[in-house]
Amino acid sequence: MNLFEKIVNREIPATIVYEDDDTLAFMDIGPIIKGHTLVIPKTCYDPITETPDELIAKLMIVAKRIAAAQMQELGADGVNIMQNNGAAAGQEIPHIHIHVIPRFNDDGHHWNWAAKSYDSPEEMEALAKKIRKGLSK
Amino acid sequence: MNLFEKIVNREIPATIVYEDDDTLAFMDIGPIIKGHTLVIPKTCYDPITETPDELIAKLMIVAKRIAAAQMQELGADGVNIMQNNGAAAGQEIPHIHIHVIPRFNDDGHHWNWAAKSYDSPEEMEALAKKIRKGLSK
Repeated sequence: MNLFEKIVNREIPATIVYEDDDTLAFMDIGPIIKGHTLVIPKTCYDPITETPDELIAKLMIVAKRIAAAQMQELGADGVNIMQNNGAAAGQEIPHIHIHVIPRFNDDGHHWNWAAKSYDSPEEMEALAKKIRKGLSK
Repeated sequence: MNLFEKIVNREIPATIVYEDDDTLAFMDIGPIIKGHTLVIPKTCYDPITETPDELIAKLMIVAKRIAAAQMQELGADGVNIMQNNGAAAGQEIPHIHIHVIPRFNDDGHHWNWAAKSYDSPEEMEALAKKIRKGLSK
């Protein structure tokens, strides 16, 4: 059983902020910014591409409500919502989870948002063509 | 009209990979990793807390499908899905958008995932209590 399943089963304690039949939300003990909350399904799915659409919708709507609570009650100026799939993307626990991270104008955090550029329009179009192909399947 | 509305209206060109009645997906011209795609609603909402639940669900399900296409057709080892709200969170265009970023084991990118810790369990619980209050409204 993974860490999140143990939290769902109350075998490992967590500071829970929300729960319903399908989802659970609790405080991340290693917050990027204090208030950082995780939203998970009670049943393990991973990655997002193997997660049912209906459950993805439920998770994201809980994330929205938590973002609203962070803005209203913590006074957050903004919120990052992030869902990482695979070790290559920084995922650690193989159970889909959405990070909801409150942001403040003076919080000092910067993602390494290192935007790059394409070598040519053709290079970008070639990748777009492959993505369209995947979407058409 | 914001940049994304101009793209929806075909006033500004974009490399579109997917379109339906409610959503549009196109290549980000400043990719974190090449293949980086944006998913937006055709109607402007911002931030996520002001976006209808049904539309959030549609956007995230399109993001899932693009993640699958990036894995299958670009050979991505992982995918970051990120939705930023507010300038404090790094948002630039005030029109809700979801970043779908393919990741590769050797891509060399690292988010600044600087996890912190709480000074005490009581500090975390105090923030959780505020978030629960916001959720109960």
